[in-house]
Amino acid sequence: MHFDPAEALSREEIASLQTARLRETIERAARSPFYARVLAEAGVGPDDIKSPQDIRRLPLTTKQHLRASYPYGLVTVPIADLVRLHASSGTTGSPTAVFYTERDIRTWASLMARCMHMAGVRREDVFQNMSGYGLFTGGLGIHYGAEALGCLTIPAGAGNSRRQVKLIRDFSVSVVHIIPSYALHFADFLQSEGISPASLPIRIALIGAEPHTEETRRRIEGLYGCRAFNSYGLSEMNGPGVAFECTEQQGMHLWEDAFIAEILDPNTFEPVPDGELGELVLTTLTREGMPVIRYRTRDLTRFIPGQCACGRAHRRIDRIAGRTDDMLIIKGVNIYPMQVEQILMGMPEVGSNYLIELTRDGHMDQFTVKVEITEDFFVEDMRALNALRGRIVTKLRDELLITPRVELVQHGSLPVTEGKAQRVSDLRPKD
Amino acid sequence: MHFDPAEALSREEIASLQTARLRETIERAARSPFYARVLAEAGVGPDDIKSPQDIRRLPLTTKQHLRASYPYGLVTVPIADLVRLHASSGTTGSPTAVFYTERDIRTWASLMARCMHMAGVRREDVFQNMSGYGLFTGGLGIHYGAEALGCLTIPAGAGNSRRQVKLIRDFSVSVVHIIPSYALHFADFLQSEGISPASLPIRIALIGAEPHTEETRRRIEGLYGCRAFNSYGLSEMNGPGVAFECTEQQGMHLWEDAFIAEILDPNTFEPVPDGELGELVLTTLTREGMPVIRYRTRDLTRFIPGQCACGRAHRRIDRIAGRTDDMLIIKGVNIYPMQVEQILMGMPEVGSNYLIELTRDGHMDQFTVKVEITEDFFVEDMRALNALRGRIVTKLRDELLITPRVELVQHGSLPVTEGKAQRVSDLRPKD
Ligand SMILES: [Zn+2]
Ligand SMILES: [Zn+2]
Repeated sequence: MHFDPAEALSREEIASLQTARLRETIERAARSPFYARVLAEAGVGPDDIKSPQDIRRLPLTTKQHLRASYPYGLVTVPIADLVRLHASSGTTGSPTAVFYTERDIRTWASLMARCMHMAGVRREDVFQNMSGYGLFTGGLGIHYGAEALGCLTIPAGAGNSRRQVKLIRDFSVSVVHIIPSYALHFADFLQSEGISPASLPIRIALIGAEPHTEETRRRIEGLYGCRAFNSYGLSEMNGPGVAFECTEQQGMHLWEDAFIAEILDPNTFEPVPDGELGELVLTTLTREGMPVIRYRTRDLTRFIPGQCACGRAHRRIDRIAGRTDDMLIIKGVNIYPMQVEQILMGMPEVGSNYLIELTRDGHMDQFTVKVEITEDFFVEDMRALNALRGRIVTKLRDELLITPRVELVQHGSLPVTEGKAQRVSDLRPKD
Repeated sequence: MHFDPAEALSREEIASLQTARLRETIERAARSPFYARVLAEAGVGPDDIKSPQDIRRLPLTTKQHLRASYPYGLVTVPIADLVRLHASSGTTGSPTAVFYTERDIRTWASLMARCMHMAGVRREDVFQNMSGYGLFTGGLGIHYGAEALGCLTIPAGAGNSRRQVKLIRDFSVSVVHIIPSYALHFADFLQSEGISPASLPIRIALIGAEPHTEETRRRIEGLYGCRAFNSYGLSEMNGPGVAFECTEQQGMHLWEDAFIAEILDPNTFEPVPDGELGELVLTTLTREGMPVIRYRTRDLTRFIPGQCACGRAHRRIDRIAGRTDDMLIIKGVNIYPMQVEQILMGMPEVGSNYLIELTRDGHMDQFTVKVEITEDFFVEDMRALNALRGRIVTKLRDELLITPRVELVQHGSLPVTEGKAQRVSDLRPKD
């Protein structure tokens, strides 16, 4: 039933494994120049770890630390023992690099194979990797996972839609790895060629590498007549294979035998209560060449409370709700635009556009949400509109814990931008 | 000293290994629909093989056979036992596909690692793969070889020269895999950026994937201050890793424990004498998922006679001299334009352009070579010019076995084409 026995670990087993592996990780990390210094300064050693919660005695690691330690500052083994390097684009800004030993490559492939198996992929499947290869960890990461699982793997790479569809048909491809936005674009291409996406033999799509909504997933599933599974990873934690959806599709199981996950308030760095949004902070437990401790991913998510129906005890994280960089502080409260979007997009009366406007009234921040209403609901009945406005205020207040002003506006009346939508207009005077 | 003990096999050991493995290959191949039919028609079975020379009892396989058998006609195992597919571009013309089991991937990686080790690459090296990934076997093939050897492997992929140079410098890259024409282009880019190619830490360049001359190799070596090694492979035989240069750089050792190589006259399909040019025909000896018997590569080369100074007994092939498609038949003799080029480009008096002109005089083919002479040598001394003309005639006759007409012309007087040079002008009436 499981690809890896580690999938069946109980909470108690996970806790004791995490304790042991965190000690090993601290010991190993101390061999790198960066952590030798950082751990000495913090005065924390392996013996200080009695439970996974003791991780909070360790300092946080940020992207800036990785940049400052480029290229080899976090490496714990001789260069001759490394077999792989993935690097962020080094042309602009400061690059970062991630290193792998041969064992790290095998561990990563095994984690990725476990994810795919959990989503229902089997060695009998024909798998097409429609993602770019090279320095991007998504390509080679999922490629190695598929081969470890034993799928017939087609390294198609990104783009060239005409070739993609020919390969999918000629080899009865049953599983694809595809970036969500390309999945939608590819469906358009197919339809323009007179091919129904649902006529393709794809039964499972692995989607990830860019944040997307539940709505996008359902749309991909509807178009291709397949099930689509959300994938989470980042190159600082190997790449893909950190967390993945099971067939319940109720959040992504994060592999707690390989990572310790914390969700922290990005201001106080205190853990948020279960179910609340915060910044995901990850620690590697099995990485040999380059362990990373308490890495601030800047990704916003929450732990999904309760037990998954699939029986796996590895905790689930929700789909990524945004980046900490997007966080607004209003009247001392952290607010993420994605929280507003989730409330609004769940209401059928609301159109596709909205705008968050921040102003200052004396010394008080004012938080206004302008909401476009669908044509059907924009009736001349003031009572009905006021009732709708009231419901939106209540829902937002329950989610955000502050009370916004809400203005209902006509469909098409808010500014539209090309490309990435501009959802926040901050008109507060700069201090 | 060797990466693989197979490198040290004697001629006798190679012959007995080839006999045993050829029998296994025939037995295995007969499980595929294509070879089941072909071998039954030929009436040849494993027991008919008493020595490697008995391979001549087996029929030849062509690219057209692979196309007609697309997609699974040559596969010998259930699809569930396959883990990789590489395919030629399927957008135009009939595609071909090559399949690998998990063991095939390991065997391929090991052959490739053996090649790199023979050229002097070690696990302490930092290796940058500057070749495209995806369906092209050159990318993943050499990537897996480098990891099997234990190099720190940077999957840079093709293009993006600015990022390539940053990676090379930041990680002290000592070995690169680079297509020869890109190696020259990359040197131009470096010089335009004020960087001397020789200042880079590259000590070994693996070059292949496109035919190139000894002159190009020496130029790359001179520019980068490195040694450049020629690589030979084709996806029908895994991809790269079929033959590779040792540090003697006197031809490429073809791994005869993994392949049986024949060099045949492309008209009669009889073996040509050692040292003479013909079509390379290859048989896989260790491929599990898709064995290929007596595959006509259409590549022209020759066995280099004698023993290599490195001591390896695996026979060497010369750099690829062209394709059988380029072959001319003049007075019943096979002639390859590359043979003419090799003679001419070895003479300092000859300029960079020449033209082969074919005409018919009654029923006799006439073979004329027009040769541009460098300005220095184009003197008004008829005696000297005639002597030079006589020397060219003699050299060409010794190589081609027929006597051409030779005309010396002034530098710049022959037509120049954009792109691939047009070296042959066939003015004979069509029959
Ligand atoms: Zn589950
Ligand atoms: Zn040699």
